[in-house]
Amino acid sequence: MSNALDGAGLMTRLDELAAISERPDALVRRFLTPEHARANALVGSWMRAAGMDVRCDAIGNVIGRYEGVTPGLPALLLGSHLDTVVDAGRYDGMLGVVSAIACVADLADRDIRLPFAIEIVGFADEEGTRFGATLLGSRALAGTFDRTVLDRADADGTTMADAMARFGLDPAGIEQASRRPDAFLAYVELHIEQGPVLEAEGLAVGCVTAISGASRLAVTITGMAGHAGTVPMANRRDALAAAAECVLLVEQRGMAEADLVATVGRIEVAPGAVNVVPGEARFTIDLRSPANERRRAALADLLAGFDAIARRRGVTVAAVQTHDAASVPCAPWLADQIRDAIEGEGHALRSLPSGAGHDGMAIAAIADIAMIFVRCGGGISHNPAESITPEDAEAGARVLARFIRDFHPRSRP
Amino acid sequence: MSNALDGAGLMTRLDELAAISERPDALVRRFLTPEHARANALVGSWMRAAGMDVRCDAIGNVIGRYEGVTPGLPALLLGSHLDTVVDAGRYDGMLGVVSAIACVADLADRDIRLPFAIEIVGFADEEGTRFGATLLGSRALAGTFDRTVLDRADADGTTMADAMARFGLDPAGIEQASRRPDAFLAYVELHIEQGPVLEAEGLAVGCVTAISGASRLAVTITGMAGHAGTVPMANRRDALAAAAECVLLVEQRGMAEADLVATVGRIEVAPGAVNVVPGEARFTIDLRSPANERRRAALADLLAGFDAIARRRGVTVAAVQTHDAASVPCAPWLADQIRDAIEGEGHALRSLPSGAGHDGMAIAAIADIAMIFVRCGGGISHNPAESITPEDAEAGARVLARFIRDFHPRSRP
Repeated sequence: MSNALDGAGLMTRLDELAAISERPDALVRRFLTPEHARANALVGSWMRAAGMDVRCDAIGNVIGRYEGVTPGLPALLLGSHLDTVVDAGRYDGMLGVVSAIACVADLADRDIRLPFAIEIVGFADEEGTRFGATLLGSRALAGTFDRTVLDRADADGTTMADAMARFGLDPAGIEQASRRPDAFLAYVELHIEQGPVLEAEGLAVGCVTAISGASRLAVTITGMAGHAGTVPMANRRDALAAAAECVLLVEQRGMAEADLVATVGRIEVAPGAVNVVPGEARFTIDLRSPANERRRAALADLLAGFDAIARRRGVTVAAVQTHDAASVPCAPWLADQIRDAIEGEGHALRSLPSGAGHDGMAIAAIADIAMIFVRCGGGISHNPAESITPEDAEAGARVLARFIRDFHPRSRP
Repeated sequence: MSNALDGAGLMTRLDELAAISERPDALVRRFLTPEHARANALVGSWMRAAGMDVRCDAIGNVIGRYEGVTPGLPALLLGSHLDTVVDAGRYDGMLGVVSAIACVADLADRDIRLPFAIEIVGFADEEGTRFGATLLGSRALAGTFDRTVLDRADADGTTMADAMARFGLDPAGIEQASRRPDAFLAYVELHIEQGPVLEAEGLAVGCVTAISGASRLAVTITGMAGHAGTVPMANRRDALAAAAECVLLVEQRGMAEADLVATVGRIEVAPGAVNVVPGEARFTIDLRSPANERRRAALADLLAGFDAIARRRGVTVAAVQTHDAASVPCAPWLADQIRDAIEGEGHALRSLPSGAGHDGMAIAAIADIAMIFVRCGGGISHNPAESITPEDAEAGARVLARFIRDFHPRSRP
């Protein structure tokens, strides 16, 4: 009998990975650093122990392959990322890689070969911590890497091209990392939720419906500054009071429909003195929805609402869109099989969108995607306080293992 | 015939004063600087030309005295301040000094002696620009100077005591600047409004009812930070959304009664990233009213309202009072005589509080006070764009001259 899916064992591996850090006091493991190479080596050793052939591709992704009943079959692609933010938690990304390896180890322990191959990828860069561009590993694999990123420099002035050369990779050869769509039957990623929904509902796992699209705006309201003691209330054109109405409108619009989230995360006012009526207010909006048309409708509602507030108050409002990413739906045929596996493992079914971005956004260019979420403590992520339990780690791995065992490719029409 | 009250002449003197600046590119004239001494000398020369005896007192105020029908009579005290903020306008303070001198010059030109003396003071420090403590000149004259300010240092590390010595004054002798209440019949200050009320109503001058009291608070709202993509709206404890409700409550409360002003001039949120729900919001409140009890009632209403918002939203609110200054009313018997002079000069009557602070707040400790406001452009002050017209300067001076000519001391009971 195999104990590859044992939760304590998964946690031990996650702790071993977390020990590979650029800083002794905090977990940080950026793209193309020596710690990236060490993490690839450790993960590669686990892959080999699970009976996989291992290689590092042209962008620095570590990839293991477990052949099916005959060599060279199209593969079910599993995985997640091995890079981290600065002062990261130890589960964001890594849990998906470690769980997938455990599933293959479980098959290998039982000498099971499936009617398809399995590939597991530990993506080299998802967070974008080093060069300010995200999803570099998955974009290279999907053939959508933007070569202008090679000229970007990190905080020390090292360009990505130079960093690749030091890592032992050829910047001219990134295209060799790209894979053909017919190589894969699907891409499935297991990841911590990074939100509080599963915890609030007492569930260990959930099925992702889509990676939400996101719009970001920078809004500037211009009123008129004035002396807080001498300008009567009726004569004011207070930019902050107008912005406060906008903040509440953003919140109300976010609450008006399920799965939409709308956030004002930054606000500044000028001149910004206790005794001066603000003449200018600047704030940001982050708007996400699994449905692009609902996100766009919300955005249009907000802009119309801001205009009405501005007209009524005699201020002006200017909004600039700073980011626009379409939603990436999980393929229904594939998500259905995830749901079957969740219920097959005895869990109540909860489907939810992913408000955070994931490698699947890039892989969707070459394969249908789906995701399994695992409960995390307090919805906390991108923070050393990120937490999961061994029981939930095992529950997630068992759902993934059941999904793999029962997986049947999409029937071609 | 005298042309001492001519508006063009007043403007010329104001321009001459504005030429005495520590910086060539901006008007700044701080307490105890060589420019302070030069301004005192110039103003002193105008006082002497108007038939006044001139001296500099122990804190650096320049004081001129014009005797009444017999020497040594109690004086009507007029004046304002000669120091400025950094990058100041040229009328804030100086207009009151220049106008008062013109009124005495007008009397001298006509060989008129009144049944009381007139003293004019050019206060050495009202703005507090150099040592961070305001009303230093008028507090010394009123006998309420706080000697701990002598140990305060300016931006260059020079203490007020050292600056006094360099200026030729003895820091040990400040008490000699203090005057007895029986020296004065009243204090009357002419000043630009620094607000938009008179301009909005098409009036050159107005009568001040009181210098408003002020409360200032620093408010901190603590909610819970979270990922803008993964925390559903219903699970949020968004500190900024709560603060936005508070900002609008402050505005509504300010609008709820005449002469009350309520301002949120600063706001900051943490962590302060586009994709993070704010976990903390800090903002300030500045609350002013000519009536202390109404200011205190508004403050209590706001704190109760904040508590209700916090309870409803599951956040906490903490408010710290950082400033509390009582209102200083203008003496009705004195303000009545100002109103008579305004109407006597053919102007419609407008009474209004002063939301900004003035030297009269200190002088009220030894004399009844009143103030005349002169219209300024756009309500703009503490800014090089501060403006008045020669016609309004003359209108203000003529109201002050008529007030002086008709002045009768308060009848003792």
